[in-house]
Amino acid sequence: MDDHPRSRSSGGRAARQAARAALHAETVPFLTRALKPFEVLDEEGLSLIEQNADTIMEEVGVEFRGDPEALRLLAGAGADVTGDLVRFPRGLARSIVQATAPRTFVQHARNPERTVTIGDPYTVLAPNYGSPFVRDLDNGRRYGTIEDFRNLVKLTYMSPHLHHSGGTVCEPVDVPVNKRHLDMVYAHMRFSDKPFMGSVTAPERARDTVEMARILFGADELETKTVILSLINANSPLVWDSSMLGAARAYAEANQATLITPFILAGAMSPVTVAGTCAQTLAEALAGMAFVQLTRPGAPVVFGSFASSISMQSGAPTFGTPEPALVLYVMAALARRLGVPFRSGGNLTASKTADAQAAYESAQTFIPTILAGTNFVLHAAGWLEGGLAVGYEKFILDADQCGMAGVFVKGVDLSENGQALSAIRENGPGLHFLGNSHTLANFESAFYRSETADNNSYEQWLEDGGMDAAQRANAIWKRMLREYEAPPLDPGIDEALLEFIARRKAAQPDSEV
Amino acid sequence: MDDHPRSRSSGGRAARQAARAALHAETVPFLTRALKPFEVLDEEGLSLIEQNADTIMEEVGVEFRGDPEALRLLAGAGADVTGDLVRFPRGLARSIVQATAPRTFVQHARNPERTVTIGDPYTVLAPNYGSPFVRDLDNGRRYGTIEDFRNLVKLTYMSPHLHHSGGTVCEPVDVPVNKRHLDMVYAHMRFSDKPFMGSVTAPERARDTVEMARILFGADELETKTVILSLINANSPLVWDSSMLGAARAYAEANQATLITPFILAGAMSPVTVAGTCAQTLAEALAGMAFVQLTRPGAPVVFGSFASSISMQSGAPTFGTPEPALVLYVMAALARRLGVPFRSGGNLTASKTADAQAAYESAQTFIPTILAGTNFVLHAAGWLEGGLAVGYEKFILDADQCGMAGVFVKGVDLSENGQALSAIRENGPGLHFLGNSHTLANFESAFYRSETADNNSYEQWLEDGGMDAAQRANAIWKRMLREYEAPPLDPGIDEALLEFIARRKAAQPDSEV
Repeated sequence: MDDHPRSRSSGGRAARQAARAALHAETVPFLTRALKPFEVLDEEGLSLIEQNADTIMEEVGVEFRGDPEALRLLAGAGADVTGDLVRFPRGLARSIVQATAPRTFVQHARNPERTVTIGDPYTVLAPNYGSPFVRDLDNGRRYGTIEDFRNLVKLTYMSPHLHHSGGTVCEPVDVPVNKRHLDMVYAHMRFSDKPFMGSVTAPERARDTVEMARILFGADELETKTVILSLINANSPLVWDSSMLGAARAYAEANQATLITPFILAGAMSPVTVAGTCAQTLAEALAGMAFVQLTRPGAPVVFGSFASSISMQSGAPTFGTPEPALVLYVMAALARRLGVPFRSGGNLTASKTADAQAAYESAQTFIPTILAGTNFVLHAAGWLEGGLAVGYEKFILDADQCGMAGVFVKGVDLSENGQALSAIRENGPGLHFLGNSHTLANFESAFYRSETADNNSYEQWLEDGGMDAAQRANAIWKRMLREYEAPPLDPGIDEALLEFIARRKAAQPDSEV
Repeated sequence: MDDHPRSRSSGGRAARQAARAALHAETVPFLTRALKPFEVLDEEGLSLIEQNADTIMEEVGVEFRGDPEALRLLAGAGADVTGDLVRFPRGLARSIVQATAPRTFVQHARNPERTVTIGDPYTVLAPNYGSPFVRDLDNGRRYGTIEDFRNLVKLTYMSPHLHHSGGTVCEPVDVPVNKRHLDMVYAHMRFSDKPFMGSVTAPERARDTVEMARILFGADELETKTVILSLINANSPLVWDSSMLGAARAYAEANQATLITPFILAGAMSPVTVAGTCAQTLAEALAGMAFVQLTRPGAPVVFGSFASSISMQSGAPTFGTPEPALVLYVMAALARRLGVPFRSGGNLTASKTADAQAAYESAQTFIPTILAGTNFVLHAAGWLEGGLAVGYEKFILDADQCGMAGVFVKGVDLSENGQALSAIRENGPGLHFLGNSHTLANFESAFYRSETADNNSYEQWLEDGGMDAAQRANAIWKRMLREYEAPPLDPGIDEALLEFIARRKAAQPDSEV
């Protein structure tokens, strides 16, 4: 554990009062980790993976498809370009990234209290991303709509345990594909004041996101401030395609941040082993981050890794198994060595419902996510079915787990109050502590209080309806949506955003691509 | 990661064949951890907790109630005894324990292939312990019976992921309290060949357990071999009572092993803080282990810690919260510094059913249990309702998690096969790996295969009945019990055991205490 002041406060009444005030604040803006990350490989092992990534980049190469500008930039920096294939001399991509990519950066929210810092020792938690389907206990599984999208933005806004509004929290399938991004970005801007993500499905949609951000934050602000973070996925193995490169370029040119993420179902898109998947992920991420830094030196990039295993019988993606957890720990360590922020993990599962499978698998992803020291976490709440669906009840249950992580990462309070010798001296052997002065003084801040767990007796639980966790979560999200109040937004800005959206929608016919 | 040979195998065909053979062996006798434990406190923090434990033992003291022999032993060793209260000069208990308690010991099973080593770098997983109620999907919650007890012993025997038969896997409430231990110990001996635990509810029941072990293993064997491991709980705060001391003495005198465990609902039985709970737990455990070492120097002892938080509203125990996880990591580190094996954790939950709450809370206990480097784990499968109930479906789901832990703790395979550069060289950019030679060569051993997860498509899952994890687990335990075959037992030994039981039962009237 490091000497972070929060874990070594000197105690006393003022400190306790401050701690209590912090507990009751509506939102902790992001997690500050006082614990050292868990490591699964030593220096020698990590170095071996790095050498293998260099070998892959040098001998096998990475394809940059359909983007002559990217090829020109990379060739100019010293890479060997043949057709779309780019081979990197050993260490080239690393030195490009390390020369200009920031170790940490600030993503501004329109409410300054929600602004987040992405990098060590912080962790920023964001909801589910990219699901075409939604699920709730009342209506089962169905295609997502813009109403679902707005509901999920509102729930994220209301959750004190999520720090970031995310991006495509679900696909609003009732809006044409080529106009969907406008309604999505607007929902993040209007119904939340937390930081958000931009569209990446085409370069012009990325540019629309940037334009809307200029309306919201002021046109000049974007040159000096990062206000959009966007998800750029590799087409693994070892391919970056033109639409992702184009979106990454649009954001980098506007000085906005990107998550450069190899998305890998190991065994299908990478070798079946942990060490092989790690080396390939590092090679792909280095190539993508080098492209961004060559496009605009200093543009914020986050080293992303998404890895699941697959069923060797069916090829279906599997979650919560030991191998992806090992990959996650290795990749986080490699990102630290490179010196850039790291994104991975979430509450991932292949389960169709918010059942025990969903929870075991989610915890087996989310706990490694936290212990690895991940800096930005997508899919921290709601994910079901390997990402095909987002569940309202799952969202509520996951958010509660996010809250617990916030307490855990603060580590052990070793202040005089934390040591509690006075409590033991007052009590002596054989007497319970419920009425102890120390217990009463710490009553409000002692122990995380779960919003979703039922800790009552069996008899009380039966009397309360004998509900399972998903049924309790169902009541919670409905109450939250009933109680939702939109954060204030300058009416002039709102009008300008709506005008921009109307104009962009009118300029093109509906399209499903 | 250390240089454990398993994680650095040189690869090649023989190694792959050996790995495949290991995968298909019916049972891994116990886990061998290749990963360094996760730490939440540094040297300075751990030392502070140790100093506080010394202060508690010196100033407040520990009561040894109703056991004059214990008081005599402790006074003789240098403790200050006043009535039942024992105050230990700083460092005394530690020096007594470190002088004679073994760092690791072997617990023999009647089948030598099931014999386990308890201590670093190993982890032994045992099922649920102590629940008066059982639950399954067909019959709901009801009092446990001797048939349930036998079923749980059989399921544990059949699970390749549980290494130890445990003890009171449920309370067989249909057998009189004073005769129950005979039927329980017999069930472990007859229906399993894994190592097991003994009775602790009274000194004479501990002696019955020792007598039955002498029949099973041979009378002389027990002097040189540990064949029984038993759970001795403190009466926290800071009390050891006469029945537990008597049982501990009976086992120690027979050179058998004990788990010396402060059982603490923090906030009720210890202060509401992590550091306070840790110092008290260390003080109680040191006092108990010192008593055992004074009784019989060298008798195996395991440093136990059971800690949950409580609801500050209702006083009900709560599980899976961040604070008990922090306690677990600290206590494991303290046990390592002391130099004795450590017991803690399990798949703990307050949930009444095998739902998402049960799984999140269990994982939030079990993952820390594994990452802390715990050596013996009780309650690794089946626990519900804060221990009041054991669930058949929960048992199956938890055992699957135990299997995953076994893969995780081996760490990252950095052999040539593990690095998989040949796979990436063969493939190149843009092609999937499903048909890659390396994938085919590793097909059988690649990725943990969950027995309980459904990874199929939503449509396939619906077609298969749309079952949740608990429903799938229900089918699994029923199939296992149908397929159960008892391990062979010498008929002469079986007869002798049954004669002993009949004689002991006839010697006393039924009693419910």
